[in-house]
Amino acid sequence: MSNYPNMHDVDTVACVGTGTIGGGWAAYFLAMGYRVQAWDPSPDAAEKLGRLIDAAWPALTELGLAPHAAKDNWSVHAELADAVAGVGFIQESAPEDLELKRELLAKIDAAAAPGVVVGSSTSGYGMTEMATAAASPARLVVGHPFNPPYLIPLVEVAGGEGTDPAAVAWASKWYDFIGKSVITMDHEVPGFIANRLQEALWREALHMVDNGEATVEQIDLAITDGPGLRWPLQGPMLTFHLAGGQGGMAHMLDHFGPSLKSPWTRLDAPELTEELRGNVIAGCDEEAAGRSVDELIAQRDAGIIAVRRALADLPGGPA
Amino acid sequence: MSNYPNMHDVDTVACVGTGTIGGGWAAYFLAMGYRVQAWDPSPDAAEKLGRLIDAAWPALTELGLAPHAAKDNWSVHAELADAVAGVGFIQESAPEDLELKRELLAKIDAAAAPGVVVGSSTSGYGMTEMATAAASPARLVVGHPFNPPYLIPLVEVAGGEGTDPAAVAWASKWYDFIGKSVITMDHEVPGFIANRLQEALWREALHMVDNGEATVEQIDLAITDGPGLRWPLQGPMLTFHLAGGQGGMAHMLDHFGPSLKSPWTRLDAPELTEELRGNVIAGCDEEAAGRSVDELIAQRDAGIIAVRRALADLPGGPA
Repeated sequence: MSNYPNMHDVDTVACVGTGTIGGGWAAYFLAMGYRVQAWDPSPDAAEKLGRLIDAAWPALTELGLAPHAAKDNWSVHAELADAVAGVGFIQESAPEDLELKRELLAKIDAAAAPGVVVGSSTSGYGMTEMATAAASPARLVVGHPFNPPYLIPLVEVAGGEGTDPAAVAWASKWYDFIGKSVITMDHEVPGFIANRLQEALWREALHMVDNGEATVEQIDLAITDGPGLRWPLQGPMLTFHLAGGQGGMAHMLDHFGPSLKSPWTRLDAPELTEELRGNVIAGCDEEAAGRSVDELIAQRDAGIIAVRRALADLPGGPA
Repeated sequence: MSNYPNMHDVDTVACVGTGTIGGGWAAYFLAMGYRVQAWDPSPDAAEKLGRLIDAAWPALTELGLAPHAAKDNWSVHAELADAVAGVGFIQESAPEDLELKRELLAKIDAAAAPGVVVGSSTSGYGMTEMATAAASPARLVVGHPFNPPYLIPLVEVAGGEGTDPAAVAWASKWYDFIGKSVITMDHEVPGFIANRLQEALWREALHMVDNGEATVEQIDLAITDGPGLRWPLQGPMLTFHLAGGQGGMAHMLDHFGPSLKSPWTRLDAPELTEELRGNVIAGCDEEAAGRSVDELIAQRDAGIIAVRRALADLPGGPA
């Protein structure tokens, strides 16, 4: 087992692939005060990356830069080996092509110093299938961000079969250390968690358009002016916990359980077994962490007001 | 065909059913300056409604009250006929029970003056099936709000087979007039639009819990700290329009179309026909309304920053 870096000593990171996602990562690392060494096969990579960082910088400045953050503290290297030399962490953000990812991760692994963890931005592949060509898959971890990576906190972390659990733990701590919101997954689920949920909604939306049941604009308005206003505050589970009134999720499942089978989406419902019922209720209780339904409602309402006021103050109003 | 009221002359409305949703409507109408006459079979309806209005009033005050809004400008009536007497609009928010709704809507219709439109808060039934017992279904319309109705702007409006199209148009204008964000549907789709989308996501979440792929807390965090931060600004369609880079939705569909079939959710994907592709792209173009991808990205980023700052300023931070 390798020794992983002391993250307090890390001052330079590598971004391999500098498209929208990789470039977004680069901007974020710069804002957090790191030096960024980048590699990308595109001939105009430096120019594109510069534009991307320029575009992201005002937003990052507004959210707060680290003390020594410098917008120009980056370099694009012609050789991958030069980009990963001397860095304390590597973020891979190549296009979503399995063969390409396999080869690239093997090359990164071959070039990087031992113990340096590599996080892949893949939006759906598991590390088990991506690490097949790498000599030392132990340090290869999925670290899936959301667009734009410089503004959305979520990173989903998962290892593959060959990944060292200590590397998964290091990556989770590292992303947390640099200010991200981390979900560490036990399983390799295709699409991880957020993309699975997004994708279910997206497919239902496509079906509605396909059947002439709703237009694209109606679908977006239904979310932005409806449940979307709650979701930055309370996720879908806690939302339904509150929909159950004082009885919470237990009342919700017992009351609306039967209508789970009603044809409100094309997605089949799972059987609402005692076990599933129990797990969902226990999860909500855990998440509520002692807050009563009334307290959660008060927090939700304060949050919705804050969000609506913030959006109303934007130039031109909500998008 | 009836003459519908001039909405500028409406000063009193009726709320039939004063649970969480009906009481939330009552609070909203009061804040908009209307007098509210309520009816509910519960013996402690007045007490409960008072508490609900008390709880909602600070939020409504913060969002801005109408000039003559008064928190105590309401009454609960023992007889349904008294509650609907002299009002310019009736919002029905009874429990989600088809037989109960049928009987209640027939009673409301029998008691209300001609031409007064009745909006039902049903979260899934179509008006065709709910209006079967009513003598004059022409003025019966679905007006589906989101919880809490005093904070979430969305109202989905749809008529049934027996509904006068002019009543549907009146209801849409009315909800818009009182500050709501209105979707007028051409079709009676079970669950309307937003609940269909929510439900797809909810079922996928239940499957994940059922299979041990994610915990309740991970599911909520995946939304609140991930795509949920974008959804108050840009719905799922516009989100994917931006995921396509400068090529927008067309690039997105052509590039990720094949992976539509990948098992990222249990929901089957529709066939991506030329027609569906065209409709989705055209819808995004219409919604973008001339804004370039760069402009949409700038608006999105400004919005996410505003939302994140607003949430960070809440006491206790995001829920």
